[in-house]
Amino acid sequence: MRSVLTLNAGSSSLKFALYRAADLTLICKGQIENLGHLSDDSHTLFHARDAAGKALADAEIAGHEHAAALRYLLDWLDRQYQGLRPAAVAHRIVHGGPRFAEPLRLSDETLQALDTLTPLAPLHQPHGLAGARSMLTLLPEVAQIACFDTAFHRSQPELQQRFALPDSYFQQGVRRYGFHGLSYQYIAQQLPAHLGAAAEGRVVVAHLGNGASACALLGRQSMASSMGFTALDGLMMGTRCGRIDPGVLIYLQETLGMSVNEISQLLYQQSGLLGVSGLSHDMRTLSASPEPAAQLAIALFCQQAAREIAALCVAIGGLDALVFTAGIGEHHPRVRAEICRQLQWLGLDLDSAANQANAARISTATSSISAWVIATDEEAMLARAAVAYC
Amino acid sequence: MRSVLTLNAGSSSLKFALYRAADLTLICKGQIENLGHLSDDSHTLFHARDAAGKALADAEIAGHEHAAALRYLLDWLDRQYQGLRPAAVAHRIVHGGPRFAEPLRLSDETLQALDTLTPLAPLHQPHGLAGARSMLTLLPEVAQIACFDTAFHRSQPELQQRFALPDSYFQQGVRRYGFHGLSYQYIAQQLPAHLGAAAEGRVVVAHLGNGASACALLGRQSMASSMGFTALDGLMMGTRCGRIDPGVLIYLQETLGMSVNEISQLLYQQSGLLGVSGLSHDMRTLSASPEPAAQLAIALFCQQAAREIAALCVAIGGLDALVFTAGIGEHHPRVRAEICRQLQWLGLDLDSAANQANAARISTATSSISAWVIATDEEAMLARAAVAYC
Repeated sequence: MRSVLTLNAGSSSLKFALYRAADLTLICKGQIENLGHLSDDSHTLFHARDAAGKALADAEIAGHEHAAALRYLLDWLDRQYQGLRPAAVAHRIVHGGPRFAEPLRLSDETLQALDTLTPLAPLHQPHGLAGARSMLTLLPEVAQIACFDTAFHRSQPELQQRFALPDSYFQQGVRRYGFHGLSYQYIAQQLPAHLGAAAEGRVVVAHLGNGASACALLGRQSMASSMGFTALDGLMMGTRCGRIDPGVLIYLQETLGMSVNEISQLLYQQSGLLGVSGLSHDMRTLSASPEPAAQLAIALFCQQAAREIAALCVAIGGLDALVFTAGIGEHHPRVRAEICRQLQWLGLDLDSAANQANAARISTATSSISAWVIATDEEAMLARAAVAYC
Repeated sequence: MRSVLTLNAGSSSLKFALYRAADLTLICKGQIENLGHLSDDSHTLFHARDAAGKALADAEIAGHEHAAALRYLLDWLDRQYQGLRPAAVAHRIVHGGPRFAEPLRLSDETLQALDTLTPLAPLHQPHGLAGARSMLTLLPEVAQIACFDTAFHRSQPELQQRFALPDSYFQQGVRRYGFHGLSYQYIAQQLPAHLGAAAEGRVVVAHLGNGASACALLGRQSMASSMGFTALDGLMMGTRCGRIDPGVLIYLQETLGMSVNEISQLLYQQSGLLGVSGLSHDMRTLSASPEPAAQLAIALFCQQAAREIAALCVAIGGLDALVFTAGIGEHHPRVRAEICRQLQWLGLDLDSAANQANAARISTATSSISAWVIATDEEAMLARAAVAYC
């Protein structure tokens, strides 16, 4: 029996999942934590669960290198599932640049092409590529597939990809790429089952997780996105600012004397829900907090999301359906309720009971815009891409 | 007979207007050009016209200093209108900070308070204050009044003034102030004459000039604005980028090695219509151009404006009326038509003939959202503020 493995490498963690290739049944999933050169002495940890969520392994790994962790993973899979060695491995790679609109089989040559995109996503691109390089060495006979977070958005009209900068910057790659593409692609595939024929209409998907963005779909293709050149723009996030006046960056540097590194750290890691609340980046913690600053952070998050959703409707000429997904989108009725309330003027009527119950359809039967909660599954998209190369 | 003088000082030009204090009848207006230290040897020029537009003076002035130019202006007014020496002078000052929501009488003390706001608008604040200081010396007995471009927006809820940054930055003044306030205030005062009772409803005003922004009004008060901390954010402009991913600034610096000054110059002076077209910042030139890049620039301008208008509707719970004003807003039917077309899904039906004729009402009788063209007059707002101190 053949399997496919999916890998999603971040700066200090690596998520994996193993699927049966024949029918994409999940076999196990897990993550490796505390990778990289951390400031403290945290051990690298390996966790695995079966499809039902039962713990299969909780172990410490020697070393903090991605390569060592991946070797440990392959050895563990060998022991746990004899004869199930993956026939293909799919890697989530943040940036596919202006060119890659589909999954890409990795080789030394294609990896080099992807290296050239690292300046476009310096915080994220290297981790994904490092994992892919390790696996290419560990499993040289096995197809390694890159799946890009930008690929799904390549269907956007050129006008949506442009900033109001001189054309030379656009030609050099300073354009609106959009991210969370694996999540949007998964939701786009799920839409017909929920919305029927309306799936082909004007749909905005709000991916509200620790990273957050929204995407406007028409005919289930990406027409516009709130995230642009980097993962900073658009919606407010766990620790990222989202949309902000570019003049703020100039001021922080020229007047407050901050370095570009300090500004980058502020906007990526100390802003958003964490920055405004001063308490936590986690919506669960903030929801439970009586602190006014926590409530302010939630209110700002919802306001910013509603604004971006309304702006995206222009790209698709209106709105037939709004879909919430990802951690906050799937599990926080209060956030959904507040965003829907701010969009009520568009003709969106929330069914409060359905919303509280995290039901699939959360708008009333008479609402002219339907609203939905659909769980996303980026790993499933990776697995599907891998199967094509088995 | 008493008069009031209005002054609107930019980096290299100074606009003035003289009004009869009793009834705010315009007596004359004009501008002084090529002020400051220019790179070429252009002479400083003085132009004045009467209320009917007839030329009264076209002269060269010795020197390039604001103070010398203002002395020339006062001498000229003395000669031209004996006994009409202004009883009050109103100055357009870009930034009133978080505090000033009303016009302010200037003195050495209040000028010092406004100096502290210069870091918030380093490119604009010094010119207005320099002009005010000169006039305080030249006419020490006459009331000098500061009218702030930010003041009208102080009615905005705090949530609209916040970025998703730690609270300490908000407390230090990094907040969304909004600009073009004199223009919006003037339009707000004109609304009842055009819209009747609907003037108190949900109105978005699009101020489309060389600088461009949009403002959401409820009860004719500012509830939200597309411009934030600086004059860079929001709509695309003549030479400014408008909304842009903050990550672009980090990339330009870290990867392309640009200095913060170069970035500031790019985003303020080389972007927008000029940057995208590579031809001109002037909508008239671009409209007449057959170049695809000129048409792209116009299309991007309209798209960005429509997006920002839709986003602003969230702050006021929908839209009853859309008002176009300022140079482009008042004189470019094609731009208005394209923006309205992109907002048609909201219930906005354009009356093409009325739009072509630059009529006051440009929506059809059955349009659920009305659309208007109303000429703005920032000088008139300055004059009204001055009269209160005569």
